[in-house]
Amino acid sequence: MRYGAEWIASPRRLAGVMSGTSLDGLDVAVADFWHDGSRERFSLVGWHHVEFPPLLRLRLRRLHEEPCSIAEVAELHWELAVQTAESVRQCCAALGIQPDSLDAIGVHGQTVYHNAARRDERGYGIGLQLGNLSAVAQWLGTTVVGDFRSADLAHGGEGAPLVPLFDWAFLRSEQDSVATLNLGGIANVTILPAACRPEQVRAWDTGPGNLWIDAATELFFGKRCDEGGRIARAGRLVPQLWEALLQIGFVRQPPPKSTGREFFSRSRLQELLQQTLTAAVPAEDVIHTLTRFTAWSVAENLRLFGGSCSRLIVSGGGAYNDFLLELLREEMPTLEVQRSEAYGIPVQAKEALCFAYLAYCTLGGRPGNLPSVTGARRSVVLGVVAAGAGWKV
Amino acid sequence: MRYGAEWIASPRRLAGVMSGTSLDGLDVAVADFWHDGSRERFSLVGWHHVEFPPLLRLRLRRLHEEPCSIAEVAELHWELAVQTAESVRQCCAALGIQPDSLDAIGVHGQTVYHNAARRDERGYGIGLQLGNLSAVAQWLGTTVVGDFRSADLAHGGEGAPLVPLFDWAFLRSEQDSVATLNLGGIANVTILPAACRPEQVRAWDTGPGNLWIDAATELFFGKRCDEGGRIARAGRLVPQLWEALLQIGFVRQPPPKSTGREFFSRSRLQELLQQTLTAAVPAEDVIHTLTRFTAWSVAENLRLFGGSCSRLIVSGGGAYNDFLLELLREEMPTLEVQRSEAYGIPVQAKEALCFAYLAYCTLGGRPGNLPSVTGARRSVVLGVVAAGAGWKV
Repeated sequence: MRYGAEWIASPRRLAGVMSGTSLDGLDVAVADFWHDGSRERFSLVGWHHVEFPPLLRLRLRRLHEEPCSIAEVAELHWELAVQTAESVRQCCAALGIQPDSLDAIGVHGQTVYHNAARRDERGYGIGLQLGNLSAVAQWLGTTVVGDFRSADLAHGGEGAPLVPLFDWAFLRSEQDSVATLNLGGIANVTILPAACRPEQVRAWDTGPGNLWIDAATELFFGKRCDEGGRIARAGRLVPQLWEALLQIGFVRQPPPKSTGREFFSRSRLQELLQQTLTAAVPAEDVIHTLTRFTAWSVAENLRLFGGSCSRLIVSGGGAYNDFLLELLREEMPTLEVQRSEAYGIPVQAKEALCFAYLAYCTLGGRPGNLPSVTGARRSVVLGVVAAGAGWKV
Repeated sequence: MRYGAEWIASPRRLAGVMSGTSLDGLDVAVADFWHDGSRERFSLVGWHHVEFPPLLRLRLRRLHEEPCSIAEVAELHWELAVQTAESVRQCCAALGIQPDSLDAIGVHGQTVYHNAARRDERGYGIGLQLGNLSAVAQWLGTTVVGDFRSADLAHGGEGAPLVPLFDWAFLRSEQDSVATLNLGGIANVTILPAACRPEQVRAWDTGPGNLWIDAATELFFGKRCDEGGRIARAGRLVPQLWEALLQIGFVRQPPPKSTGREFFSRSRLQELLQQTLTAAVPAEDVIHTLTRFTAWSVAENLRLFGGSCSRLIVSGGGAYNDFLLELLREEMPTLEVQRSEAYGIPVQAKEALCFAYLAYCTLGGRPGNLPSVTGARRSVVLGVVAAGAGWKV
């Protein structure tokens, strides 16, 4: 376990495991990372998506919505470790490699609470990720890095977003100003001015990504998501709902800012729907209006705070929503909207890849947060490292 | 951050922070560790006890006893980090040293759940410690090691007790068979046969230590504990209560075994008291009976499973209870009962010192669990390591 400069001097193979606010499951990406003298490079070995068992999804959702016993929190902490280890095993099996041949695994963990709002009052925001890192490391025989957000929160940062360092390392351009957009449960953007240095990167959450679209699609159509945006495309705008959505102050609040499932909750959505819908409103109109809101809130954030970008590189599950991408192009006609696949990054694996990279940075002794992005007082090496087989000396 | 054999080759100064099931506060110990060629050595630099604020104690107790929001769990996770960092700062200030001059800090964390009972069914038991390790590392600028129990649980162990490795390293004797006893909220013993190897060590929880004595003292006398055992000494045995206590199967269950606040809960005690007390019973008789139960359950465990020991080295807050120590001597007349002070270990700092030592082992790349004690399938390097200033390269 000679981590630091020595460790990062050799090419390394890492897995990253991401589970987002949509609570749908785990994305695993395996990639090689190295430095070619001028820039850092990565090469994706493969990726894999594993659905959470329905009961686990339900239990995680309940954790957000009602009081629970500490026994249930502990049970989920371990059940998520089981799922995490199993997802890495499955991904490795599909790639024909052994989990303990990985140099390390970066695990985001399941965010069950995130509240950076009170950081001005007490000097730091707080958050909580579940998923026992030590158990994953022991079961797979590999070093595991996780809890990436706490160190940034501890220094007064929002603890999010953390993808921007990855964006800077691999998606910045010497000629163009580039924006990246991740459409997970929450949507976030990174702004990379042409030839920017890390301290010039800006990034923030813009509002809901798929969270409310998925919730309404489940509510009205009994489906987990609006595939390709086909339902939304068939609907029309519901003016009262639209007006109510425009009142949500978070969208136009200046960055740095981050949000989560607590704020864009199901109960808030249900309240909005109850206040604005009449019995005559077709269900697809609701999905249409929520999809427009996601597109508008992203566009509004780029217009207000994004400077002049020439490219928007889209990733996350929402990048599969063709109608949403059309709306983005409509909202921002001067922008070239691309999926991240064009850069060797499968849209659904980008965040998993990012946490593999953040683990690479931590074990290399390098900071992983960008204070310009999170608002932290300093840049620091992120995370905690769970001893695995790599720990043996 | 070159941890492992290289790191442990030099003398190291570590702090350990312990907060037990009594929920009274934090104990911090600072010690130097080194190897003198034949054996490991330690030298205590100093120690410090910090009381939890009453509100925090109440919130932690509620967490065990009723459903709570995940926000409350997250708040406590961070509030415990604040208390941990502050306790180390206070201890260091009293000793005239800087926290970032420590090589590392071992943090036990606050156990809010521990259940090894179902490990036979699913292959592992589970537990949960709160106290954000990353935040403590960042605030103090020092590497922090914590979550020591998970790795052992993950390999099918009880995750407890973990003090025995310390006992073996520093309290074993070449001539005598030694038992150690820690009287915290829960009581546990370690058996060190003369000239034993690590795999010959046995240890287990015997039942309640001070947990029920403290709870009843608070209930009937409004005091946090029965100082020196003076209340108990003034009382007499309550036969009905005594008979009910003897029915608790855990005491005579063969080791390995561990227990916690969930099993020896306030509500179980209150139930027992309601079933067995009449209005005529003096309150000091209750304390007397519960104190006798602690002494008897320790003695019964040593008689049934302890082999023939010649010395009992007592530590933990309960070692201040002179009446309890008298009862132990009465129960086991052939045993020499000593306080751990005789070995340079303040009774209240022993566990803190132990977790400093376990952090020393982890960073040295050495296993920290004893499979003969915990029942784990293998011995492993324990814990997770949070990057602090020491992480910089």
